[in-house]
Amino acid sequence: MNRKVYQRIKTIVAPHIHHTPVVASSILNDTYGTNLLFKCENFQKAGSFKIRGAVYAASAKLQRQDTNILTGHSSGNFAQALARAAGIFHKEAILIMPRNAPKVKVDAVRTYGATIIQSENSPADREEMMANYLLENPGAIFIHPSDDLDMIHGNATVAGEFLESHPVLDKIIVPVGGGGLLAGTGLAASLLSENTKVFGAEPKGADDARQSFYSGKIVPSKHPSTIADGLRTQLGKINFPIILETVHDILTVSDEEIITAMKDVYQYLKIVIEPSAAVPLAVVRKYPDIFANQNIGIIVSGGNVDLRTLRDIF
Amino acid sequence: MNRKVYQRIKTIVAPHIHHTPVVASSILNDTYGTNLLFKCENFQKAGSFKIRGAVYAASAKLQRQDTNILTGHSSGNFAQALARAAGIFHKEAILIMPRNAPKVKVDAVRTYGATIIQSENSPADREEMMANYLLENPGAIFIHPSDDLDMIHGNATVAGEFLESHPVLDKIIVPVGGGGLLAGTGLAASLLSENTKVFGAEPKGADDARQSFYSGKIVPSKHPSTIADGLRTQLGKINFPIILETVHDILTVSDEEIITAMKDVYQYLKIVIEPSAAVPLAVVRKYPDIFANQNIGIIVSGGNVDLRTLRDIF
Repeated sequence: MNRKVYQRIKTIVAPHIHHTPVVASSILNDTYGTNLLFKCENFQKAGSFKIRGAVYAASAKLQRQDTNILTGHSSGNFAQALARAAGIFHKEAILIMPRNAPKVKVDAVRTYGATIIQSENSPADREEMMANYLLENPGAIFIHPSDDLDMIHGNATVAGEFLESHPVLDKIIVPVGGGGLLAGTGLAASLLSENTKVFGAEPKGADDARQSFYSGKIVPSKHPSTIADGLRTQLGKINFPIILETVHDILTVSDEEIITAMKDVYQYLKIVIEPSAAVPLAVVRKYPDIFANQNIGIIVSGGNVDLRTLRDIF
Repeated sequence: MNRKVYQRIKTIVAPHIHHTPVVASSILNDTYGTNLLFKCENFQKAGSFKIRGAVYAASAKLQRQDTNILTGHSSGNFAQALARAAGIFHKEAILIMPRNAPKVKVDAVRTYGATIIQSENSPADREEMMANYLLENPGAIFIHPSDDLDMIHGNATVAGEFLESHPVLDKIIVPVGGGGLLAGTGLAASLLSENTKVFGAEPKGADDARQSFYSGKIVPSKHPSTIADGLRTQLGKINFPIILETVHDILTVSDEEIITAMKDVYQYLKIVIEPSAAVPLAVVRKYPDIFANQNIGIIVSGGNVDLRTLRDIF
């Protein structure tokens, strides 16, 4: 990605998304001993940053091949994002979602006019159904929720906007699951800032990205277990080399530490976020030696959380 | 209040507060069948609109009489606001707070450097302790949390900002407890807009304002019972004639209706609000004949809610 490519991506994505606000809290800054700035993708259309990748991927792929159908599999934010992106381009969306996807997310996907095919709960079952669907519908365009260069490029616009409005950021921290946001953030920071280091924040119970980062090869995610439901996914093959090249470090925190950070966000920032979006702040609290007394940018990845989940957390 | 007075109030208040954002949600608009705009005082300093009144009241009263001590009684948002306002004017804050005030609010007041005197839980006990304190400290300046013309004038800047950024509002709805926000909103709308009608929104279990509005005299609030803890207070004598003159109607909703609206705000607007702040949206849902297909402005009064309260609600 060079500046010209980035400008083209931004031009395609910008009309269809919110330029999300950046918020701060003096009490949080005092508590954490550093200057924290939060880029609020929880206020983004479809409730997370994924709409950026979905819009750009749909646009780019439709330029290469026309179709009536955009399709993908997801238990969460990507399903809502792709459903909405398909509407923007007047295409049909077919989404494979597991039986145990939260009702609120399934309802949101339906509201955007998408068709849902229910799979069993395992990622393997979802992927098999997806493969079968594509065999039967060879004209449909498949978009992967994270491990796709177009998705990564669309996701890069979060950090792009953030660095344009706040060029003084010393560090940017983003949650890492499949790695699509982290890779996009790494690319944007490499391109747009000389001094901003990018960090991934990962739950200890799903630390395949950190293990892969340190071993230099992709470590399979076996039995991921964390409250941060958006981060249980396997690190992707396309994301991985970009992350190795552009990311400074990947740090992990426990679920307990994630919950503490999440409560701080509700109490002091007064914004609704999903557990995955609290992981970067938990990392700041855990590693003061790395993050104290600087300008720290946190990408609040999304706000799609079931109220029952909140009840259990509080 | 005329335009010149309003401009002076605004000039005094503006440097010490946030010009809060106005947010919206297309899903909420579809669900409620009207165009809803939310003025987010939950993002205000000290977590509610009360800082506006507290800053202006402190400033106005200090111009009339100098003192080292600003004092008041409150179980909630006003305590935080006065503590913070006192800091702005480099004065000491003495606050009488009941034993059952939420720990999170007591902690916030302490963080702002105020001294807390604990009272028993009844409003009568709080007021008696306040009277005794003022007898012993005749130089201290007392500020009432809602029934005070300076507070009303400071509060008027919420609707003032709202109407300046969104002059097309057909109606503005605000929660009513003591009546300080409703009176201020009524004054601002009368002054700044020819076509905007102001509505009060009140819990059924604490409907002294509606009863007073319809009977033309203040009806005492006996045993108020509602989840909207900020709205259990008695309508004030100074607010009442202003409300009679400037407010179009006061409508009531049940606690169940308040909770439904509150969940919608968390789910679709992704902002943290306290139960009192959900009452206006509940009124919109209950009275579609009055509010459908218009530009409806809602003042989100505050976001100071205990996470345990949220747990019980969700």
